[in-house]
Amino acid sequence: MEAGIRRYKKELDYSYTLGPFPTFELLEARPELAEEVCVSPSFNDAEKLFALCKKLNVPCRFDQKTLDRISNKEIAYAACKFRKFSSRLKSDAPHVLLVNPSDMGNLGTIQRTMLAFGVRDLAIVEPCADVFNPKAVRATMGALFKLRVHVYPDFETYRKEFPQRDLFPFMLDGKEVIELDRCPKSDCWTLIFGNEASGLPPEYAELGRSIFIPQGPDVDSLNLAVSAAIGIYTFTRPLREG
Amino acid sequence: MEAGIRRYKKELDYSYTLGPFPTFELLEARPELAEEVCVSPSFNDAEKLFALCKKLNVPCRFDQKTLDRISNKEIAYAACKFRKFSSRLKSDAPHVLLVNPSDMGNLGTIQRTMLAFGVRDLAIVEPCADVFNPKAVRATMGALFKLRVHVYPDFETYRKEFPQRDLFPFMLDGKEVIELDRCPKSDCWTLIFGNEASGLPPEYAELGRSIFIPQGPDVDSLNLAVSAAIGIYTFTRPLREG
Repeated sequence: MEAGIRRYKKELDYSYTLGPFPTFELLEARPELAEEVCVSPSFNDAEKLFALCKKLNVPCRFDQKTLDRISNKEIAYAACKFRKFSSRLKSDAPHVLLVNPSDMGNLGTIQRTMLAFGVRDLAIVEPCADVFNPKAVRATMGALFKLRVHVYPDFETYRKEFPQRDLFPFMLDGKEVIELDRCPKSDCWTLIFGNEASGLPPEYAELGRSIFIPQGPDVDSLNLAVSAAIGIYTFTRPLREG
Repeated sequence: MEAGIRRYKKELDYSYTLGPFPTFELLEARPELAEEVCVSPSFNDAEKLFALCKKLNVPCRFDQKTLDRISNKEIAYAACKFRKFSSRLKSDAPHVLLVNPSDMGNLGTIQRTMLAFGVRDLAIVEPCADVFNPKAVRATMGALFKLRVHVYPDFETYRKEFPQRDLFPFMLDGKEVIELDRCPKSDCWTLIFGNEASGLPPEYAELGRSIFIPQGPDVDSLNLAVSAAIGIYTFTRPLREG
């Protein structure tokens, strides 16, 4: 990998955190991915960041010029360049599967929610928003570095790798109503959510037990990150109690 | 009110919807607020929009120039100028109270979630993001026009207007754990959520029964719109069950 940080493009084999919070999260959770850190001379906690980088043997320097170039007009006090990565999902753990998510903010918020509720395996089906775009990385608040995330070219590839799962597609015409005490029990579930605008294609209903989150007729649908949060919160309750 | 639409500023006594979806929602839910509609000549459904405006007696014209000026580089096929409004909240209905929300996207998503779960009264305590900023309006997906929303200068003013409510502040050190089957029962609840970065000040814990959404130690906190969604979903279950 070349030295220095260029403005993000999807084609690059690296990305970067923007801001001290995700930078510390990356260095603490996945130091082996970190390539170099840039710090703003006006960052209050620069000393702490330099000390951590020294301990981890990650190059760290004051470099306002790079920060200005890569931060898209926002103020970023620190950034860390990291290698893109892909993880193998754990076959006996709960999964979330996002089919064609298009919004980077939703993608990040869902990862943050998964981690909060102890679900660590995320599958994403292309085409989809870029999980490594710095905006998406920032929206995860560091969760990206604590999850196993894998991007699949299509649903069939995921299905072949994990043939034994109980699939729960969330659909506006889902057959089962999701309420905590009626939540289907399964040790090996995959919650499936579709695209923000179009939801899941109708054929997903046949793949498993389709779920509907009860909602009034006055809205078109819930926000994707909100639907996913309610699904994850509800399905993880038995885990919290067990 | 002057004719024409200027680029949005908080000081104006009007705002506007951006995009056909919120424009139709406004015209259908609150036509009395609508002042004028601009339509792009390249909008497919222009005829339908003109017909609706004619029926409602709202001036409507093709005006790409205005759309380009007010839409901030995004493509907007329609916009409707509307008078800002304030509603008196219903005293015997459930309320959501947001203290100092700073993100317009969250503000909009929370309104959309409230409407989906049948909670129609939203109180907001200043300082806060501008509910009428076109970005915030758009994020509601039209929900703004179906809710009662009131902005208060401080919490005390809300408290004086509604002294009889059961208050449930959501806090990271909340005393009660929120789970559907342990959810406190009340006919007249107010769910209270704090600012994205700082949460609620500690004194809110004394105002009512403070609530904690169980979450793992790996995240700092849940996203505000996600916390609110889980709270609203959980507290409205008794309503859904009748």
